[in-house]
Parts: sequence; structure tokens; C-alpha cells
Amino acid sequence: MTRRVEIIEVSPRDGIQNERTLLSTAQKVDLIRRAIDAGIGRLEVASFVNPKRVPQMADAEAVMAALPRDGRARYIGLALNRRGYDRAVAAGVDEVNFVVVASETFNQRNQGAAIDATMGQFAEIAEGAAADGVSLGLTIGASFGCPFEGEVPVGRVVDLAARAAALGASEIALADTIGVAAPTDITERVAAVKSAIGGRPLRIHLHNTRNTGIANAYAAVEAGVERIDSSIGGVGGCPFAPAATGNIPTEDLVYMLDRMGVATGVDAAKLIDTATWLEQQLGITAPGMLHKAGLFPPDAKAA
Amino acid sequence: MTRRVEIIEVSPRDGIQNERTLLSTAQKVDLIRRAIDAGIGRLEVASFVNPKRVPQMADAEAVMAALPRDGRARYIGLALNRRGYDRAVAAGVDEVNFVVVASETFNQRNQGAAIDATMGQFAEIAEGAAADGVSLGLTIGASFGCPFEGEVPVGRVVDLAARAAALGASEIALADTIGVAAPTDITERVAAVKSAIGGRPLRIHLHNTRNTGIANAYAAVEAGVERIDSSIGGVGGCPFAPAATGNIPTEDLVYMLDRMGVATGVDAAKLIDTATWLEQQLGITAPGMLHKAGLFPPDAKAA
Repeated sequence: MTRRVEIIEVSPRDGIQNERTLLSTAQKVDLIRRAIDAGIGRLEVASFVNPKRVPQMADAEAVMAALPRDGRARYIGLALNRRGYDRAVAAGVDEVNFVVVASETFNQRNQGAAIDATMGQFAEIAEGAAADGVSLGLTIGASFGCPFEGEVPVGRVVDLAARAAALGASEIALADTIGVAAPTDITERVAAVKSAIGGRPLRIHLHNTRNTGIANAYAAVEAGVERIDSSIGGVGGCPFAPAATGNIPTEDLVYMLDRMGVATGVDAAKLIDTATWLEQQLGITAPGMLHKAGLFPPDAKAA
Repeated sequence: MTRRVEIIEVSPRDGIQNERTLLSTAQKVDLIRRAIDAGIGRLEVASFVNPKRVPQMADAEAVMAALPRDGRARYIGLALNRRGYDRAVAAGVDEVNFVVVASETFNQRNQGAAIDATMGQFAEIAEGAAADGVSLGLTIGASFGCPFEGEVPVGRVVDLAARAAALGASEIALADTIGVAAPTDITERVAAVKSAIGGRPLRIHLHNTRNTGIANAYAAVEAGVERIDSSIGGVGGCPFAPAATGNIPTEDLVYMLDRMGVATGVDAAKLIDTATWLEQQLGITAPGMLHKAGLFPPDAKAA
């Protein structure tokens, strides 16, 4: 049986949100259309957060309004609180990705609330999500380490995942927000969380900050994860810091999975074109590598 | 039992040989001293090849003559033919790393000889290596793919490895010279070669051209490989091509192995300092990531 992994494209949200060059609504829609044309079937298209804090996401509603609704892709909106959730639903997203951070300090800084308060909001929202016509997933940020508190106990991640599952989350995501995990961390935490969420789908969100991102994706696939976030070109680096901190590059991930015989339905050659296009839009050299090195063998096509 | 991996530092050879900025003999010796001070116990310090083809290696004998001989590290010299072997022995290396390429076209271009002719030279050399007082290993270049011929049959790699073992090679290395392997390629070829070389040590040499290098190192460790080549800063990119094609960065590899509980005896913090120093010597931004992002937790020390 061919193994299959669903790639969730996050360049329109996590990828570009820290970029210095603001993309226009039309450019974002173009990016999303290109990703869908390459075979991507699910994308995080915007975050519904305070536009003063994240100017790159100020046109979230306009992006949603301009997207094709031909059923080729499902659109996810990110929310940090009730207000963000309501905006995402009103904008017509298919899914809301709600976020809690597995570190008290980081959750306070990111959402302005304690973890329990954020989980309380998630519980309230979860009650009405079905009636609102959206899937509601939960991402657990800093699941592998926190820039303020250091190591994050596995028990805290498992506890949050179990609570999310009990509240009816449609999907639970573990995020290595600051890119610190090694493959064995992935293996350990995926197994622990899986056993706590009773068969609910598990998604993983990786950053390549310390060059372990693709190795971690490999470990996730080996651990049975079937949903992986990535970002065309590996964009997501903070322009104000010399350290590249982007998401794992979609085209690099697809190259690896193609060679592993893991089906994604995504065309690496089209992703390469889009990575180069995105570099031009942002005026950067993106950290992804396949779009610089090319496919192997040179005439290879996506499986 | 703690797992242990030996890291072979190749920045003085593969790392810098394609760099535009020529390092002086003193700079190379400084690089090697810094690596040893970080805990590296084995290094490829030079290649004994035609200086017209590889100007960065023209001072191979001078580098060897200037190195400390206090027993803290073993020095490897690379050779492509009999003449290179004789030069390396005369220069006083502890080990010679002889190279054959697992693709007829590439071996012709790299060594100016057919594979069988190169293996014939290796056989001749192997007869006298013990008397010459050196260990003699064989690296099989392009073991995972060739830029000219495309895919390389696993049987050809296994055959070369078996011949090297029969001829008494002290070590056999599989090189992903152009950085095309996925982790499953590593798993498959390591297992196939191991079963053909009767317990002889297996070493792996990886390039991060398509962002799979660290994942491949993880797969190699999982497959039982205990000797891995890497290059401080991940240097090795060709300055005349936009594609970064460096070796896997030593400090990034050590970060991952530290977090996996795999002992290396190498201090990641010292490697970070050396990566930054090497960038200054070469006037480049090296592709390694840990020296930009820093250790995690920030006060972490090598195990």
C-alpha cells in the first residue's frame, strides 16, 4: 500500500507574516492559486489577528473574498482568540486553526492570556463550531521547546492534546515553533500524543531553524504522521534577525517524500517555479534548496 | 548503552576546495587546530591531487608538515590515484582515503580512468599500505546518484564495496557527492553494503544540496552507521553556482546528535565559534544554521 502524506501549505500565513515586503492581496491570491495548481489541497491562507501586530495579515478578509471556491482546496484561517475565530468564520474559511502555546510565558506574550484562559476560549468555541459550519483544529505551539522557558515537558503537551481531543478538536497539531526539535523528540512526542487523542488526526508544523526540520519531517512520517505543514521556498525567516527561521520548504519536503515513495499529489517542478516566483515577489533569496539545485534526476516528475 | 558516532571533519578538504577565497597554509592549520580543540579526533586535512585542477589543495604537503603530532587526532589525506597515494604517505598522513566513483562517466571525469582501472590501482596500493604504515580506506563517490548518468544501481555500489573489503580496505565510505539521497536511500544502501563487507567499518559522506543531508545523517545513525563526515559551517558550496552544495554542517549535525543522546565527544559551542571564524576567513555566509540560530536551550553545553 502506498503511503500518503497530506501537505498543508502555510506560506500565505506563517511563511510571509514576518517578511519585510508586504504582499498585496492580489499577490497572496496568486500564491495560493499557484500552490493549488501544484496539487496542494489544503492551505492556511490567513491569520485573523490584530493587524497592528501582524501588518502582513491585515487583509485576511479580502484574501478570503478573492479566493476561488471551486472545491479544489480547503482554506484554513488561524485564530488566537474568540474574536479571531468569529472573523474567520465570517470570512468563510473551511477550517479554523486555533492556537495555544505549551509554555505559560510564550502563551502570555503571544495571546495575552494564560494557557487555561486560552483553553477556556477554545472550549467555548468548540461548542459552536459545528453549527458555524467549520472544522476546528488546535495547534499546540512551542511543543518542543520555548524561547523563554527552555525545555517544555512532554506531559504538558500531552495534557493539552488530550483536552483538545476531549473538546472535539477536528485535528491536533504539534508545532516546533522555534525549530529546536531533533528527530527523536518527534518520535517521542508523536507517540505520546497519539496515545492520548484516541485516533484523532495529528498534524505537525516544523521550522528549520537549526537544520533539523526535514529530518524531523522524516521522523514524523516514520512515526505515522500523515499531515505536515510546509511553506513554499521555506519562507518565514525574520528579516530583522540573521538566523533563518523559516518553515520547512514544501518543495524540499516533496522531493524527499517522492524519493521515499510517499505520495503527496503535489508536483515538485511546479513548486520550484512558485518558489522562484515568490522570491521575486518578496525580494529575497528563500532558504529552500531544491529550487536552487533542481530535481534529481534532472527530468524527474512528481510521482 | 550510550550510542556513539565518530565525526570526521572534512572542511579542510571537501569544505574549502571549491571556495573562491584561497586559504593560506596557516589558516588551514588554524582551522584544523580549532576543530581538534572542539573535540574532533579525525580529519580529512588535504587532498593530494593535481594543484592545477584544485588550487585550494596545492599546499597539501605544507599543511601536513605544520600540523601538531601530539596524538590528539588522526589525519586523512585524499588520493585519486597512485601518485596521490605516494604523496600522501610521504607527507606523513595516518590514513589515505582513496576514491572511486560509482558511475563510469563521473569516474572518467574525476580520475581520468575507468572504474576498473581505478580499482586496479586501489588493489596495487592495498598490497603495500600496511608496510607503508597507513590505513587505507575507500570512498565510493556518487553512491546515491550521478550528475551525468542519473540513478546509480545499488548493485554497482555493493559490488565496489565488496571488492574494497576483499582487498583489505580499512573502511568503506558511501558518498552522496551531489546531494540527491533521501533517508530511505540511505537505509537501503547502508543495509545492502553492510551485508557485503563483513563487519568492516562503514562511513557516510553527505551533502545537503537538496536539504536532505541532516535527515540522511539521522537515517544513517538509525541504520547503525557510526562514522559520519561533516564540514564546519557546511562549507563546500561552489562559488560559481547559486545552489548551495556544501557538506552537512558539523555543528548542526552535533546539535541533532546531542539532542538524540548520541555521543560525539564534540563541543557544539566551540564549533559555532569556529563556523563564524571560518565565514570571516572565507568572506562568505556559510550555509550552516546553528551558528546563526544558537544552541537550545541557550545555555546548553555539548554532552
